Amino acid sequence: MKDSVKKLDAFFNPRSVAVIGATKGQGKAGAVIFENFATNEPRSVFKGKLYPINPKEEELLGFKCYKTLKEVPGDVDLIVVIVPSVVVAGVLEEAGEKNTKAAVIISAGFKEVGNHDLENEVIEAAERHGIRVLGPNCLGVFYAKTGVDSIFLPTYKTLSTGEKIVSTPRPKSGNIAMITQSGAFGSAALDYLSGRDMGVSKFVSFGNKCDTSESDMLEYLLEDEETHVILIYLEDIKSGKDFLEIAKKVSLKKPIVVIKSGRSEAGARAAASHTGAIAGSDKIYSAAFEKTGVIRAKNTNEFFDIGKALASMKPSVGSNVGIVTDAGGPGVMCVDECEIVGLTVNELTKPILAKFEELKEKGSILKIAATHNPVDLTGSVLDDQFVIATDLVFQDPDVNGIIFLGLHHMPGLQERYISEVAKVAAKYDKPIVACDIGETALALKTRKLFDELGLPAYASPEDAAHAMKALLQYGEFLKKNGALDEYLTEYNKRKNKQ
Amino acid sequence: MKDSVKKLDAFFNPRSVAVIGATKGQGKAGAVIFENFATNEPRSVFKGKLYPINPKEEELLGFKCYKTLKEVPGDVDLIVVIVPSVVVAGVLEEAGEKNTKAAVIISAGFKEVGNHDLENEVIEAAERHGIRVLGPNCLGVFYAKTGVDSIFLPTYKTLSTGEKIVSTPRPKSGNIAMITQSGAFGSAALDYLSGRDMGVSKFVSFGNKCDTSESDMLEYLLEDEETHVILIYLEDIKSGKDFLEIAKKVSLKKPIVVIKSGRSEAGARAAASHTGAIAGSDKIYSAAFEKTGVIRAKNTNEFFDIGKALASMKPSVGSNVGIVTDAGGPGVMCVDECEIVGLTVNELTKPILAKFEELKEKGSILKIAATHNPVDLTGSVLDDQFVIATDLVFQDPDVNGIIFLGLHHMPGLQERYISEVAKVAAKYDKPIVACDIGETALALKTRKLFDELGLPAYASPEDAAHAMKALLQYGEFLKKNGALDEYLTEYNKRKNKQ
Repeated sequence: MKDSVKKLDAFFNPRSVAVIGATKGQGKAGAVIFENFATNEPRSVFKGKLYPINPKEEELLGFKCYKTLKEVPGDVDLIVVIVPSVVVAGVLEEAGEKNTKAAVIISAGFKEVGNHDLENEVIEAAERHGIRVLGPNCLGVFYAKTGVDSIFLPTYKTLSTGEKIVSTPRPKSGNIAMITQSGAFGSAALDYLSGRDMGVSKFVSFGNKCDTSESDMLEYLLEDEETHVILIYLEDIKSGKDFLEIAKKVSLKKPIVVIKSGRSEAGARAAASHTGAIAGSDKIYSAAFEKTGVIRAKNTNEFFDIGKALASMKPSVGSNVGIVTDAGGPGVMCVDECEIVGLTVNELTKPILAKFEELKEKGSILKIAATHNPVDLTGSVLDDQFVIATDLVFQDPDVNGIIFLGLHHMPGLQERYISEVAKVAAKYDKPIVACDIGETALALKTRKLFDELGLPAYASPEDAAHAMKALLQYGEFLKKNGALDEYLTEYNKRKNKQ
Repeated sequence: MKDSVKKLDAFFNPRSVAVIGATKGQGKAGAVIFENFATNEPRSVFKGKLYPINPKEEELLGFKCYKTLKEVPGDVDLIVVIVPSVVVAGVLEEAGEKNTKAAVIISAGFKEVGNHDLENEVIEAAERHGIRVLGPNCLGVFYAKTGVDSIFLPTYKTLSTGEKIVSTPRPKSGNIAMITQSGAFGSAALDYLSGRDMGVSKFVSFGNKCDTSESDMLEYLLEDEETHVILIYLEDIKSGKDFLEIAKKVSLKKPIVVIKSGRSEAGARAAASHTGAIAGSDKIYSAAFEKTGVIRAKNTNEFFDIGKALASMKPSVGSNVGIVTDAGGPGVMCVDECEIVGLTVNELTKPILAKFEELKEKGSILKIAATHNPVDLTGSVLDDQFVIATDLVFQDPDVNGIIFLGLHHMPGLQERYISEVAKVAAKYDKPIVACDIGETALALKTRKLFDELGLPAYASPEDAAHAMKALLQYGEFLKKNGALDEYLTEYNKRKNKQ
């Protein structure tokens, strides 16, 4: 790893942090951020040395306040900068004397509003002192393990009714790295990932990316053992050449999922006035993603759905899907969507069909069950029938992966099938994704249980089909590049540790 | 209305109901259904006369049990039939003597498993006695107002841990009619609609539709004042000619949203083995839907999203959308999706842009705000800025509708903007849909508040764009057929009553 990339580690594991512009006052960026470090609730508290910098305060939340960065005793690894844009370059000059390795610049008012000179001053100062910069105009970093949290959006808000309510939660620790050019998309992602209980290894919002870019971050995350999948929101790419090189390298070891906005002409114009991004032709981006194995999501929901699939499930090495269900109609919808995205749902092979007939004779599954694929056990399904049928479909040599589409509503079902289907799945080297439809208690619980058991679960048959498609897309990329075996070895090692 | 269609009213407003096959025993269809009528929890209890029919029981839940339907004193408007398929035709013969108007046949084992003769016997008996039949192989009817509930999927399940948990909830009363060929999709719909707090006027699952078809039901719902939008899950259409005629008639008065499965060849094969449906070419269906103004959803999520939009919001009469946001990145994503589905996001007109500049001068909105469309008030937005900007964008003569994309995360926002934006929207004859992204408390609360105020709210910019597209599609159909003014008059009458 290049030294310049190694230095990025200071964003996540600083021994000391100064918050330049720390202050009091509800909702103020400098107050929220300093509080994050000092009392981070509920995820964790920063474990290193913490210095609030504010010439007007003596102390903040029990921490001695310094008038300037210079006054702080000793080195400061990381600074978080919230002061007005015109004084930011000056702050970096001071940081040079403190051996600062990294700076998160929250402040806006640079390139994105046309102030290119101001941004160039920042870049020059940072280069002169060898400081890596995130931003400006960003949320910065959230890393639960060390308590680094430069996000100025408060975890809780107090409404006019007096109700204190979760507003911008911080996700639990996990294996998904979330990187975003847009801070607003970042806040939405934090909220989504928390609500869906998806764990995050590193969260990075880089805004104007005057220094640290998506490619730098990819290079850093390549070696990050906590990160098993990387989710990126992009409006443009800083250096196409760097990206092509590093993205492919990363994709061979861990999947990258991208949502790239500015796809339309009007969207590109909007992006330009947002982060000053020059979006370029969308087709060029698509080609670059394809070449490097980066999986491109079509929309917000798919972005997170695919991320979840790749974070927990092995890739697929073939396009044919077996569907096991108790729901005729949704089964048909699932077949439709599979075919539309380029998967197939072929009839099961003769020996497997024959075994299903035996099971019918024995009474292990119902005579009225359809078994050609989808295997529809009907609304009279019982837990054991789901388990037996799933096992049998896994055995079909022509089936590359299973969509388990079990509606919990059927009266004969208990929740036992969930853990038992997961046990069956663990016996096979093929992927499986689950689906249950509904938005009330048992639907939410069922999907959560599947998720916790490592079977990514979805709320619609179409979402499940898209997840399976992403597993195939990644599997095919690995296979084509001779990296599948190594990936699976690593994957299995991780699973065995769990 | 034809007499035969009038008779369908007995499914929803029967004076008396007999449950043939009512029984005891947890989870048994005959037990769940009888309990629904007797003690329906939590929505309502059946208000007419109720007769359990079971030769082996003396009483059930305090109701005197009859050995046969014949023994019941007086007429029976509606029968719900849960007995084995071979005896169903006989039950209909008995029902003839009881002046029965309508029969819900829950029992399976007919056409869908190849027993065509058995199904024909049922059809003949029903015709001979002038009984309208729903099913067989269906869930039947849920109508909260009278307590008719023939759904054999229990509202609650008790898990192995002893926990009693909502499994198949019944939605609250509202203006959405939900009609489904697939019972499983029906159970999923009940769960989804309940969880998203969407109100249902009538729920009907018709399974094999040996008698009552989608077209009959459309004809009935045409005159149903409680129903303002009709959602249909279809695998095939019983009579194309009937459908073309009635669907267009209905579409001129209230929107119809369809999800039609069996789109792919493999899907059509699966559908055939499910309800015995012969799906036919998918293109023919698409053409029929287009001709009749029926809006076709591409997937489960869009189906419900579109339904919600049309249930609460007026249609759009032009394709140009104004986007008001505090979220740069998601704003760009919203522009992209609008353009992709055939909407436009043109620059605002000069006079409106000039007014925005005035607002900036006055300090009413921030100088850094982008105002060309999307109007991006940035993460520093305050409630009032949202209200002022939304009002101004509504005033643009080139804007046909607004997507209000307000992320609640921004620190300066309270929840006040929600009700105030709704007040602004009420002043204009243009539609508006809302979006907030996130899956934790304040995101859920924000979307719920918007929904309750009649502004349909979505969890992603893409979903909001699809909703707006559906409003346009319906508006264009009405306009083309000279039915827009009448529809809007009715719409406004309803809104004023609320």
